[in-house]
Amino acid sequence: MPEPTNGTDLRELLRVPPGEPVDLGRHDPGATPGGPGGKAAALAGTARLAATLAGLQERLYAASTRGDRRSLLLVLQGMDTSGKGGTVKHVAGAFNPAGCRVKAFRAPTVREQAHPFLWRVARALPLPGEIGIFDRSHYEDVLVPRVHDLVPRPVLDGRYEEINRFERTLADEGTTVVKVFLHIGREEQRARLLARLDDPDKHWKFSPADLAERARWAAYRKAYELALERCSTDAAPWYVVPADRKWYRNWAVARLLLGHLEDMAPRYPEGDFDVEECRARLIAR
Amino acid sequence: MPEPTNGTDLRELLRVPPGEPVDLGRHDPGATPGGPGGKAAALAGTARLAATLAGLQERLYAASTRGDRRSLLLVLQGMDTSGKGGTVKHVAGAFNPAGCRVKAFRAPTVREQAHPFLWRVARALPLPGEIGIFDRSHYEDVLVPRVHDLVPRPVLDGRYEEINRFERTLADEGTTVVKVFLHIGREEQRARLLARLDDPDKHWKFSPADLAERARWAAYRKAYELALERCSTDAAPWYVVPADRKWYRNWAVARLLLGHLEDMAPRYPEGDFDVEECRARLIAR
Repeated sequence: MPEPTNGTDLRELLRVPPGEPVDLGRHDPGATPGGPGGKAAALAGTARLAATLAGLQERLYAASTRGDRRSLLLVLQGMDTSGKGGTVKHVAGAFNPAGCRVKAFRAPTVREQAHPFLWRVARALPLPGEIGIFDRSHYEDVLVPRVHDLVPRPVLDGRYEEINRFERTLADEGTTVVKVFLHIGREEQRARLLARLDDPDKHWKFSPADLAERARWAAYRKAYELALERCSTDAAPWYVVPADRKWYRNWAVARLLLGHLEDMAPRYPEGDFDVEECRARLIAR
Repeated sequence: MPEPTNGTDLRELLRVPPGEPVDLGRHDPGATPGGPGGKAAALAGTARLAATLAGLQERLYAASTRGDRRSLLLVLQGMDTSGKGGTVKHVAGAFNPAGCRVKAFRAPTVREQAHPFLWRVARALPLPGEIGIFDRSHYEDVLVPRVHDLVPRPVLDGRYEEINRFERTLADEGTTVVKVFLHIGREEQRARLLARLDDPDKHWKFSPADLAERARWAAYRKAYELALERCSTDAAPWYVVPADRKWYRNWAVARLLLGHLEDMAPRYPEGDFDVEECRARLIAR
């Protein structure tokens, strides 16, 4: 049963309209648009959604065993501490791990750098029936190089169109592409980085390099705005999910996945064998 | 906190002693050795174990970010319906999917057949810090070919030693290898296959070929006994887990993993940066 969202499809609320300019200043990272009404309701709602999502995943997987080629890819992007890892843990945790392919992209290796930037992404795509989740993605290749001026501008500008073609082909081949920008505020990032410093068990998640990137906040924000406005397409929409409140973030991502999986409407395939004959053989021995 | 097992390490109870002959007729698939005392206690115990396992996994992963090369590989084998998939769902479901690499091995593809049988297995191994789970494995290559007489006997007999060398190298490189044979009875298999036939939503899990394999029950059993007795080593022990009761199966596999992860004792790494300086920089801007 879908969670109530006051009659509004959450996807309509959070989607970046294709072709329109994006100003992240107009999106409050602390807001809870379409939310179920507070933390307790969101936690309960997310728990209920988990069971529904797992059921849809099983149908999607089952259908793939009889030729259904469809899959779903969730792309997670966002500033440091925006909760990409937490979303994987809490939302992907709803799925059967056997059908869920999680890939975290880090700085490209020497081997990856020798290939076009989409190469390593293509190798990590979900197979038919699978849910794929990217923690960072090919969008890093229009973010980091732009902020650090690593690639000639014409090459960089060409990548957006490469990405749109790539994602359009994915969609044509049966992959539902759901792209989520986890939108965190600068103050909330400060609080989360301080929390990591305060807890020795979280020091492994911290690097002084995070502070250098934080100092480029405005440049990253601009790079994200460009990526969102140039690459939110009908084939592969971007959603801006306010992420200062973890309980809203998890609920919203789960709800977005639910909407897309319900549209896909995967079904258990019919058996192609004689049930009665098989039953008789089983009973006989 | 470890679950009580009447003072006995479950690993001692279920391990196949290296070098000893194996007679599966002496293992009751309906038994619950070392169990926590009934279904309700096992379900509660498994739920408690899940949180502990997730915590150990996070430490293992965290340690890998600072050079710890260790990982864990769970190999699941068993007859059809013995619960390999269910174990993945319920036990692997405890882990953060970001650090859990699940691989189901099916009949080898044309490309896989062109390589030595260990090739596809080597490509699916967990990376440092990861938990890998194999639903079927390289052991299929000493089971199916033996039962169906597909490979010359001397070649087949050589594979056990190849496997032992392979697993020994894995262990030397830091991978803890935990091999679990899910031991189901022939009557319980009949009941589970009938249940699949009775539920149209489960027909996708059924194939008439399952009945042909079931007819070779004794041959498979003998092939499993050989694999268990030739390949249970100190470096990579086999465990026989009675699997007629799903609640015991899940509890026992979780408990075995806990034992091994506790022995590994992964730790959060210390930060290699100046905490106070970073805190000051964060507060400043």
